[in-house]
Amino acid sequence: MAEASRKRSRSGGGAARRAERTAVSVETERYIDRNIPLYEFLDEATLELIEYNAETVLEEIGVNFVDSPIALERWKSVGATIEGERVRIPRGLARELCKTAPSKFIQHARNPDRNVEIGGKTLVTAPVYGPPFVRDREGGRRYATISDFQKFVKLGYMSKYLHHSGGTVCEPTDVPVNKRHLDMLFAHMVYSDKPFMGSVTEPSRAQDSVDMCEILFGKDFVQKNTVMTSLININSPLTFDSIMMGALEVFATNNQACIVSPFIVGGAMAPVSIVGTLTQVLAEVLAGIAYSQILKPGAPVIFGTFVTSIDMNSGAPTFGTPEASQILYGAGQLARRMNLPFRSGGGLCGSKLPDAQAAYETSSTLNAALIGGVNFMLHSCGWLEGGLVASFEKFVMDADQLGALHKMSLGVAADENGQAMNAIREVGPSGHYLGCEHTQDNFKAAFWRSDLFDYKPFETWYEEGARDTYTLAEERVAKQLATYQQPYLDPSVLAALEKYVADKKAEKPDAFV
Amino acid sequence: MAEASRKRSRSGGGAARRAERTAVSVETERYIDRNIPLYEFLDEATLELIEYNAETVLEEIGVNFVDSPIALERWKSVGATIEGERVRIPRGLARELCKTAPSKFIQHARNPDRNVEIGGKTLVTAPVYGPPFVRDREGGRRYATISDFQKFVKLGYMSKYLHHSGGTVCEPTDVPVNKRHLDMLFAHMVYSDKPFMGSVTEPSRAQDSVDMCEILFGKDFVQKNTVMTSLININSPLTFDSIMMGALEVFATNNQACIVSPFIVGGAMAPVSIVGTLTQVLAEVLAGIAYSQILKPGAPVIFGTFVTSIDMNSGAPTFGTPEASQILYGAGQLARRMNLPFRSGGGLCGSKLPDAQAAYETSSTLNAALIGGVNFMLHSCGWLEGGLVASFEKFVMDADQLGALHKMSLGVAADENGQAMNAIREVGPSGHYLGCEHTQDNFKAAFWRSDLFDYKPFETWYEEGARDTYTLAEERVAKQLATYQQPYLDPSVLAALEKYVADKKAEKPDAFV
Repeated sequence: MAEASRKRSRSGGGAARRAERTAVSVETERYIDRNIPLYEFLDEATLELIEYNAETVLEEIGVNFVDSPIALERWKSVGATIEGERVRIPRGLARELCKTAPSKFIQHARNPDRNVEIGGKTLVTAPVYGPPFVRDREGGRRYATISDFQKFVKLGYMSKYLHHSGGTVCEPTDVPVNKRHLDMLFAHMVYSDKPFMGSVTEPSRAQDSVDMCEILFGKDFVQKNTVMTSLININSPLTFDSIMMGALEVFATNNQACIVSPFIVGGAMAPVSIVGTLTQVLAEVLAGIAYSQILKPGAPVIFGTFVTSIDMNSGAPTFGTPEASQILYGAGQLARRMNLPFRSGGGLCGSKLPDAQAAYETSSTLNAALIGGVNFMLHSCGWLEGGLVASFEKFVMDADQLGALHKMSLGVAADENGQAMNAIREVGPSGHYLGCEHTQDNFKAAFWRSDLFDYKPFETWYEEGARDTYTLAEERVAKQLATYQQPYLDPSVLAALEKYVADKKAEKPDAFV
Repeated sequence: MAEASRKRSRSGGGAARRAERTAVSVETERYIDRNIPLYEFLDEATLELIEYNAETVLEEIGVNFVDSPIALERWKSVGATIEGERVRIPRGLARELCKTAPSKFIQHARNPDRNVEIGGKTLVTAPVYGPPFVRDREGGRRYATISDFQKFVKLGYMSKYLHHSGGTVCEPTDVPVNKRHLDMLFAHMVYSDKPFMGSVTEPSRAQDSVDMCEILFGKDFVQKNTVMTSLININSPLTFDSIMMGALEVFATNNQACIVSPFIVGGAMAPVSIVGTLTQVLAEVLAGIAYSQILKPGAPVIFGTFVTSIDMNSGAPTFGTPEASQILYGAGQLARRMNLPFRSGGGLCGSKLPDAQAAYETSSTLNAALIGGVNFMLHSCGWLEGGLVASFEKFVMDADQLGALHKMSLGVAADENGQAMNAIREVGPSGHYLGCEHTQDNFKAAFWRSDLFDYKPFETWYEEGARDTYTLAEERVAKQLATYQQPYLDPSVLAALEKYVADKKAEKPDAFV
């Protein structure tokens, strides 16, 4: 894969150079490469207990593979016991099957400068996924459209610390259900040059994703390289449906990456205890990733976790809570012990508005994701109201915060310059560091600064309208959309993508459910 | 001290019982006792390097003790080299002197149920300290008054997760500078029954603090127990002034605790590099705490750190940044290696309003403080605009968040109930946990919930006015102040405190600078 990457890098250089010639230069950090330790939350004994119990779940209780005789057949062939749709997996088998999954992989972007490495010490950020609604300050909350979708892709393209264009950044509800994946993929491919996700809502739509990628990247390149990372949710508890497994099959057999992810509202789809939830999460991931490796040994996969807590008064899912962080930390440890890339976290919050609640909750999750070892962070920005809403203002607020994670991950320098003993000697007691040489030499890169927040003197801030973060973000969204310029794409590729979408849409009648 | 604590607990029982009989029961968590690991950010080699360099700073560069011949005399007597006001401390001497400081201590409150243990695995939260301004939504930003001060003390008393009443929660600028400490101490003693801080702005005011405590607790009790924790700032770089050292002397010789704390705006009072700053912080704390132990071996002290980053564009101090967290983590490690209680962190932010910026910044700092091993967290709630402003709304917002730290610190249970294997067996694949026995048994304590945030269904929230966190907090402040009831205090003690304040005020003319 490394060699293919280099080849791609050479052949894609022309496009990259042309992209550089566009008027607006869009700077993007490649990905976070942690030079800091992780937070090891659970002790060895607890981790071993969870691992033992997860195997017990697989062996004694088992998992359901629904509406998929072929999946049951495959499980039987590797030694599982089948009873109806129930698959019972002997202790150790699933973990053994998982061993062929790579510990890290490169997801290629059409602009090779945007390729991301997923796994090991890296953290790749991707935007919010799935909301049926959007919200902005001016228009309020409303059903999302393909126009909104395109705007989010553009904002993502312009966000320096967002490495990945994501997938369903919002549901374009004005496009038929059976055709909207085509417009979404087209938007990611055309309005951005960052890596993206494929469609999983039907196996045929996963195949459309692969086909469109073959137009964008070339058929041979797609078969030899990973160009999509897609989200395969498990129907917790312990259930795998034929649609998701069908999409997984399309992607895995085409060498494309999948996040295999339990989707859990705490207390509903898993036990309310942390260790119990982690046990179920691990059992589900073991079964799902083992199945991916049965389909294609070596297929790139990510150990996924999405667990919310719940408000005991209203029954609403809650985010940014201590329990969510504890599960993230524990799941990260379990993933690392399997030597697999890990997905969790994001800018999760329950608030209806991009206010202080949203920021408290989001910040807790973002920081936990960084030190908890997340490698792929979906929902990094734009998530609002428990994922029902994609917020334009929160998108740029969170995207700005991702810069702080970047700086944090650099760690600290303990070389002679970092020690600064000469500066301490030069300044001495009661002196001032602002003018000293060490400060002048290091000042620019020393401290992270937000590109969005207010750091002005009180009087200036007051005279300029006493703007809060919401207002500053609203202005930033407008400015970014006004200055957006489409990255260069070969006109023949663009035409071929347009034709594919048009042909596919013409094939069948619209369906809205 | 443990025995004295028990005695106090018995003799204070009557007051505690009377307090319980007041109409409004104020529930307060004692303190956070971490059952989770800490985040060990710096590696051993870097820590050793910082420790070595800090000793080099003390030995070669030295520190200034300004306007205090007696301090120089004391340093000389223990083996330091004096040159003018410069004190050079031979390698290892300061660290050796620090060894008599206790690794933890109990600070007593007049209600023994509110006593706090500071050190080891505990985290004690105290409110914002020092702002000359206050802000609320209705009144905007204005100079603080003693009436504002009293309101903050009342809010602190009613905050479940705030363990400590603090000190200068705002500067009561309507009271003469030379008398306001009397009114502040009186407010803490009368409007709350939580532990508090003494005055440090002049040695005579520190003595007033001790004298008033002797009225409140009894003379004998104060001499045998710690009833105040006060804030002694170092004039970084490497300078100790006679006022602060004089206050430290009063407190230390009376067995009262002090936080010995560098106060650093990064790039101005210390090098812009993390390792350089930590080196200077450690040198300053070593010298300051060593001096406290020269004054009185065994005097309780806290390793303090207050370091901001700076915005390279405006020159404004910035908060909640990655560098601030890195320094907090590193300083915590250095403090633990000295076996000393550690102070840092808090709800720090630079925002002018309690908006999303404030919450992002605050949340980053609060979470870092919890896993970074902070034992005493000043500025836990109410801090706004870089500490220039005490915000009523942010006070209750942050105080609510402290509950999340409490829950996080409990860690996870891995016993049979925590493992929940029976629940997983009972529910099985495709089932639902809401009705199962394990969920019913554990639901109430399973997930933290904010007492402030909105968790309502969208429609309800919208119909109720679509309130943001700022609005919810404004309502909470009003409600808390309206329902506040003063905790019981023996009328003879109250009268004696009133007389002390009146007599002291009558002694001298007002001074406003």
